[in-house]
Amino acid sequence: MQSSCELPKATRKRLVQFLQILKTWQNDRIKSGDLAKLTACTESTVRHDIFLAGFAGGVSNGYSREELKNFLNVKLGFETESQVLKKCCIVGLGRLGAALLDDSIFQDSGFRVGCGFDSSVNRVEILRSTFPLYPAYEMESVLRKEKIEHAVLCVPDKDAQNMADRLVKFGIKGIVNMTTTFIAVPDGVHVADANPALALMSLKKFNIN
Amino acid sequence: MQSSCELPKATRKRLVQFLQILKTWQNDRIKSGDLAKLTACTESTVRHDIFLAGFAGGVSNGYSREELKNFLNVKLGFETESQVLKKCCIVGLGRLGAALLDDSIFQDSGFRVGCGFDSSVNRVEILRSTFPLYPAYEMESVLRKEKIEHAVLCVPDKDAQNMADRLVKFGIKGIVNMTTTFIAVPDGVHVADANPALALMSLKKFNIN
Repeated sequence: MQSSCELPKATRKRLVQFLQILKTWQNDRIKSGDLAKLTACTESTVRHDIFLAGFAGGVSNGYSREELKNFLNVKLGFETESQVLKKCCIVGLGRLGAALLDDSIFQDSGFRVGCGFDSSVNRVEILRSTFPLYPAYEMESVLRKEKIEHAVLCVPDKDAQNMADRLVKFGIKGIVNMTTTFIAVPDGVHVADANPALALMSLKKFNIN
Repeated sequence: MQSSCELPKATRKRLVQFLQILKTWQNDRIKSGDLAKLTACTESTVRHDIFLAGFAGGVSNGYSREELKNFLNVKLGFETESQVLKKCCIVGLGRLGAALLDDSIFQDSGFRVGCGFDSSVNRVEILRSTFPLYPAYEMESVLRKEKIEHAVLCVPDKDAQNMADRLVKFGIKGIVNMTTTFIAVPDGVHVADANPALALMSLKKFNIN
């Protein structure tokens, strides 16, 4: 069976969406057509993704909600035997970054925030959080000591690429990019965009009339 | 020529990514292979997307950065003759929503924030912003009067679907979903996810060794 790290990026992203749908799905069974409609992809894509993940339970009247949910939870790594949460860090504690200094935001994600960084020592001293905040110059030593491999990047847009380069150098393998700047990373490092303005842009349409 | 509202959702999303890349691209020309590598899709997808958008300038040595950038800016509707920014609203002014009460976040997105809403009258009175904030019970009248069709949804997860239903009833056509809850919307309404925890989940991998 394939391990989840070999799943194509787009498949993994859709499987996370399927899982979120299953969490609130009211019926006992769910069809590939339901998932396709809700995620705006084709039925065959849904079936292919679930097949790639290695789930064997599909039949003509759909998937069992509980079976598929439990399978995806484990397969995607959100429920592990040890239930040890992975640590991530928040980089850049401006308005948006500071808003993420709240444990509840990452609840049920399989992650917890281990620490935060900002270039301003003053900012680091003023802000309150349940985890330690450090000035940016301590980043390398903290990340290596804590073995943190995931970062949420909230620096100003103009600093995004530079900071991403530094994070990669310090061992970061996955970056959630909250800036509007496209960041380039080497092979083996993964980026997911989560900027509200970019999301809004992806929705925007001409007014035809 | 096709209008942009007919572009498939996934194509539109990738075209927005291409545009962000072009803004910081250092060379005069860019190849489909460059865009493919940076966005983790195939070269043929890149060429197909750009073809679908109606851009005619591709040749064997790549696309002209300036031509493609200007074309996509207009095609995707971020630069219009009138340069009138569309208005969006922030719904839910908790920690994350309040962090978006900052004009700079939506700069260059073709949107500006027209107003914000929260169920707590107290919250609405305390927070400061350059645009008006209203209690949630005024939502319908404000959205209709201001002709706002786009919303950034920052309510608590448990309220996400209910609030999305209300927004759709009030005429909202596009929702940026900042919650971790999957929200179902009727045909003709579009949703883009931008929750940092979900983005982090889409990155997570097993530790193989």
